[in-house]
Amino acid sequence: MSHNTFGHLFRFTTWGESHGPAIGCVIDGCPPGIDLSETDIQPFMDARKPGTSRFVTQRKEPDQVKILSGVFEGQTTGTPISLLIENKDQRSKDYSEIKNRYRPGHADFTYDAKYGIRDYRGGGRSSARETANRVAAGAVARKILGADVRIKGAVVQIGSSMINGDNWDWDTVCQNPFWCPDAQAAKDWESYLDSFRKSGNSVGAIVEVHAKGVPAGWGAPVYGKLDSEIANGLMSINAAKGVEIGAGFASASYSGVENADEIRMDGNKPVFLTNNAGGILGGISNGDTIIARLAIKPTSSILTEVRSINSKGEEIDVRTKGRHDPCVGIRAVPVAEAMLACVLADQKLRHRGQTGR
Amino acid sequence: MSHNTFGHLFRFTTWGESHGPAIGCVIDGCPPGIDLSETDIQPFMDARKPGTSRFVTQRKEPDQVKILSGVFEGQTTGTPISLLIENKDQRSKDYSEIKNRYRPGHADFTYDAKYGIRDYRGGGRSSARETANRVAAGAVARKILGADVRIKGAVVQIGSSMINGDNWDWDTVCQNPFWCPDAQAAKDWESYLDSFRKSGNSVGAIVEVHAKGVPAGWGAPVYGKLDSEIANGLMSINAAKGVEIGAGFASASYSGVENADEIRMDGNKPVFLTNNAGGILGGISNGDTIIARLAIKPTSSILTEVRSINSKGEEIDVRTKGRHDPCVGIRAVPVAEAMLACVLADQKLRHRGQTGR
Amino acid sequence: MSHNTFGHLFRFTTWGESHGPAIGCVIDGCPPGIDLSETDIQPFMDARKPGTSRFVTQRKEPDQVKILSGVFEGQTTGTPISLLIENKDQRSKDYSEIKNRYRPGHADFTYDAKYGIRDYRGGGRSSARETANRVAAGAVARKILGADVRIKGAVVQIGSSMINGDNWDWDTVCQNPFWCPDAQAAKDWESYLDSFRKSGNSVGAIVEVHAKGVPAGWGAPVYGKLDSEIANGLMSINAAKGVEIGAGFASASYSGVENADEIRMDGNKPVFLTNNAGGILGGISNGDTIIARLAIKPTSSILTEVRSINSKGEEIDVRTKGRHDPCVGIRAVPVAEAMLACVLADQKLRHRGQTGR
Amino acid sequence: MSHNTFGHLFRFTTWGESHGPAIGCVIDGCPPGIDLSETDIQPFMDARKPGTSRFVTQRKEPDQVKILSGVFEGQTTGTPISLLIENKDQRSKDYSEIKNRYRPGHADFTYDAKYGIRDYRGGGRSSARETANRVAAGAVARKILGADVRIKGAVVQIGSSMINGDNWDWDTVCQNPFWCPDAQAAKDWESYLDSFRKSGNSVGAIVEVHAKGVPAGWGAPVYGKLDSEIANGLMSINAAKGVEIGAGFASASYSGVENADEIRMDGNKPVFLTNNAGGILGGISNGDTIIARLAIKPTSSILTEVRSINSKGEEIDVRTKGRHDPCVGIRAVPVAEAMLACVLADQKLRHRGQTGR
Repeated sequence: MSHNTFGHLFRFTTWGESHGPAIGCVIDGCPPGIDLSETDIQPFMDARKPGTSRFVTQRKEPDQVKILSGVFEGQTTGTPISLLIENKDQRSKDYSEIKNRYRPGHADFTYDAKYGIRDYRGGGRSSARETANRVAAGAVARKILGADVRIKGAVVQIGSSMINGDNWDWDTVCQNPFWCPDAQAAKDWESYLDSFRKSGNSVGAIVEVHAKGVPAGWGAPVYGKLDSEIANGLMSINAAKGVEIGAGFASASYSGVENADEIRMDGNKPVFLTNNAGGILGGISNGDTIIARLAIKPTSSILTEVRSINSKGEEIDVRTKGRHDPCVGIRAVPVAEAMLACVLADQKLRHRGQTGR
Repeated sequence: MSHNTFGHLFRFTTWGESHGPAIGCVIDGCPPGIDLSETDIQPFMDARKPGTSRFVTQRKEPDQVKILSGVFEGQTTGTPISLLIENKDQRSKDYSEIKNRYRPGHADFTYDAKYGIRDYRGGGRSSARETANRVAAGAVARKILGADVRIKGAVVQIGSSMINGDNWDWDTVCQNPFWCPDAQAAKDWESYLDSFRKSGNSVGAIVEVHAKGVPAGWGAPVYGKLDSEIANGLMSINAAKGVEIGAGFASASYSGVENADEIRMDGNKPVFLTNNAGGILGGISNGDTIIARLAIKPTSSILTEVRSINSKGEEIDVRTKGRHDPCVGIRAVPVAEAMLACVLADQKLRHRGQTGR
Repeated sequence: MSHNTFGHLFRFTTWGESHGPAIGCVIDGCPPGIDLSETDIQPFMDARKPGTSRFVTQRKEPDQVKILSGVFEGQTTGTPISLLIENKDQRSKDYSEIKNRYRPGHADFTYDAKYGIRDYRGGGRSSARETANRVAAGAVARKILGADVRIKGAVVQIGSSMINGDNWDWDTVCQNPFWCPDAQAAKDWESYLDSFRKSGNSVGAIVEVHAKGVPAGWGAPVYGKLDSEIANGLMSINAAKGVEIGAGFASASYSGVENADEIRMDGNKPVFLTNNAGGILGGISNGDTIIARLAIKPTSSILTEVRSINSKGEEIDVRTKGRHDPCVGIRAVPVAEAMLACVLADQKLRHRGQTGR
Repeated sequence: MSHNTFGHLFRFTTWGESHGPAIGCVIDGCPPGIDLSETDIQPFMDARKPGTSRFVTQRKEPDQVKILSGVFEGQTTGTPISLLIENKDQRSKDYSEIKNRYRPGHADFTYDAKYGIRDYRGGGRSSARETANRVAAGAVARKILGADVRIKGAVVQIGSSMINGDNWDWDTVCQNPFWCPDAQAAKDWESYLDSFRKSGNSVGAIVEVHAKGVPAGWGAPVYGKLDSEIANGLMSINAAKGVEIGAGFASASYSGVENADEIRMDGNKPVFLTNNAGGILGGISNGDTIIARLAIKPTSSILTEVRSINSKGEEIDVRTKGRHDPCVGIRAVPVAEAMLACVLADQKLRHRGQTGR
């Protein structure tokens, strides 16, 4: 029922605003006896943190995670793990001029409509800075899943430029500033994205995340479906506008014969011939790779002037200064991986709880 | 935490299998003092029920809802509303041959993997018959929302055939067996769908649902976002493979300038110029029409033989006899409307709870 | 968040009013593969059902449970188990005169204050008839717990008459109409209770429930404590006014030395020398017998006239006719056992989920 | 489902161990626009903090609360309120000798049984230090309840010494180190408690909490009853062994006539003549003062040697050194008040959500 909590048996609650002293999250339900320290979490934080290339926001945040509870002598104790990340590079004055102005595409207007008050500095609670907490929780979730479950994400489209799937190489993903699995596309994207950036514009993207090694049987009917919870988790990421599983929207144009995910045996293991299902049938994992895609809209904070209103209901024009991502889809990759990890960790524990397996 | 419950303050729990004596749902948290009888619910049931045209399954189910509790002298009492729908037209013997065979694209394999047991008759718990309950709950949710919130859905694509958006006419939706808002497309779809049906094949579809009249302010950060919960609810519908809000996946290819949902005033009411946002900003409604789309894969039960395995892990071929929808996307329309209504009713009550408004 | 649901991983939702067509419950989260039929549940229903002696209400309800879902070929499938109990012996006219009158000690006034409407027939939703559902759910919970966990309850006090603990004999409990473990007290209670019954009065009672064989480790800090959840569950029983664990209120008058639950070893098993702790330390089971006691107030429905008000706020006098238990504490025994079973089954699954043990 | 979260619409999640760097809590669901600063919270913290008299532990903790989020320009924003309390006076070496020894009456044994690991320093997560968070959350809950709802607690019994109810004076409660409402009893308790303290012993207590000004209508059937949730909340307090509402266990010995809470009118307000109901009927508030009592066992940490076992299952003797409360019941008063406030704030919001009132 909480508005700021995600998950059930494995669950995390996040708090904090973009320009407060810190942000953080509390993870509850982590199994005991798992080796865990800040160094397990930090690499994932570093993958998401701002300022790593010219294609992301230039805000400088070290995003150092501190573990405040729930770990004793290097192991989880089964009690809540409190994680704290200090905000270091706030420039609140950047935001004074949006205090009473609603940036189109932002939550400024809706927070005021809902609460009658908002911390306008940097978007306050609606800032994508909140996603640092998810990445931290995701690092813990990966520990619960163990080495057999491997979760990786990539950007497969920026604006109108798609990767060539035939070039997909997971090793390439870490070798460019876009998490792009296609070396050629990554090269093209440099100038493509620069053009948006330099013109005070921004652009959308599509992120794809995979989870390999998930055993068949995780998930649950009917309102605890693995795909519903993935949709829920991914759609909760800032700027997300769409989620699809496996063949996704393309399956709408398929016939039943085309879409059929036929099954053969590879030794004693079932093999699905198309994985149009994206590894999920009836809300339950089938043992194949889980595949989800996430549409991220272009950053709404742009230097180009757009029409809007202020809090008095007067028509105004808004140019959003500050340090913004020209394509927020890029930094969504580690976040989407983290959300997938959290959904899976939770479903693993729930499956074990109900079935004992 | 329940796997068969949806919602928080307004919540429903469903039970029942395709070929058991009945299915049903229990609605908890309904406000008191609302006029409610079976006649408020039945029209929505009739919209979803099978056997209404040659384009849907020929199973004959009257889907008569009985209210067993929670209503007294024609009004809701605030206590649980138990709804019961008897199963009338089971033909369990149709299913004896899939007892030990896994139909590709179905939950047969995954239920066995999860539970080690399944009611194989008609898909058991994984049958789309479960969605009758959602429609019943949705009818109650509409009562909570009141007449100002109007929820309608339509099929906008079947297979590769899309409607022409310029022809959109809500009145047309009820005048064809496809819930199609474009009279021309509806006409085309008759022969198009017949071709799939007659060849023992099936086809996918895209459903679009709108909610007009939702006030600004419903929804919540960060894991209670209105769009996350809509994604969760729609993705939980049988055969769903993708969900998008507003411009959805298209927004990935937009620039920030193109995607900007600029705001002007119409009297004292803000007007959003593109509604690329689909009526939701930062997880909270902005007062514009809420728009969501849902991709439904083609029915997996087809007469065409496909390759699969049985429960012993032997390779087999499967032809699925029985009475199946050639395009399950059609009957998904009332279900998608219902899920949207349920999400909104729940968010309305939660918003009122937290803010007093 | 649901107001009519109990539990987390193992959870049940109840519905129904005293004088509607039926009552029922939906159990979610039951592990698959458990042998279950109506005959596993019925004996517990029979233990609670009315009309079994002159010391309980004379309403005649067979309380036959029907399983509508979740069981296939004699085994649970892991999907929701819907249980239905028809109401057979309603005499709604008995209640017409309390339609606008608030019986002191009843929920008549508070339901009206909360909802502005109530089903006044037989107390509607607030009737103890609802507890039949708990007993049914408890029977399923016992199946989850298995034969090693043995849950039994007894009445240890009626009015001012306490049992002599030295006479405690579990076999005696089923051999008298009071669930009394002390044969001498049971004999005394016949005339004692008759005196209340015949004078149009009623009397309170204390129920004690034991769970033997619970392994050490179930429960959780800090808001998922086993004792908190037992308190929650027992206090939710109609007419409950107090709950205590182990030494309970008596421990307030003890010194630390007196209260100490010292530990010795019996082979390789720890033995607690006093069980003042009631089998729970820090909210987690210690392997000793779990002991809880529940205070049940006297039936508020009495033939003796008492002062009250009506729904217009006028002062009136009320005599409650109808068929009421002279001591509702008696029929609370199977209900208290059931709630303890449900708490333990849920904690067992949650423990297994988090720790894998 | 969370083990470390309390409440539903108004909910808080706590984290932290006795000897970690800090403890804290995250409050979710607080209404927006409430004036809130650390100075609203601190007085309640000071009431609970250790070291204020010789009758409580001599650990020196300033228990200064810091608000890290959810408040902007002095007002709540409706987003999560993160509260942090640093641990200042840890003496972890005090605990090295209990590392492998189980103190009777403590959670040492059960945490090891559950998790296979525990932070043994100061009891770790099971320490009563966790209750500082509850007091902080309770201060926020009081703000939600507003000035009309007044929550106060008192110690009514220490060991075998009860107060004389005729002497009850709320002003006296703050004028002695025991929160005792009876000046004479407070005087007696000084030497009475000294005798336990000096002999290396401890003693139990009974705490009573009142909530005046709660309107009729808060609470809910059947598993959301106000009394069940109070029982849940109070029983979750460290060392609690019993909870009762209104006449509580005494009602078991009453007849229906004696127990009847007759109703008369005082102007247009119903008046309950005995308040044996403790302000709650059918799980819903009736407008009268809500009264709950809580039995607190004697501190288990005593200097007197008691028999126990170590983690190898060997029999040992344990004397618990360190700085312990001779009567933990005293410091339970502000905690019990806080839990009552939190239950009421949550029920207020839930009632408003469902009914709009």
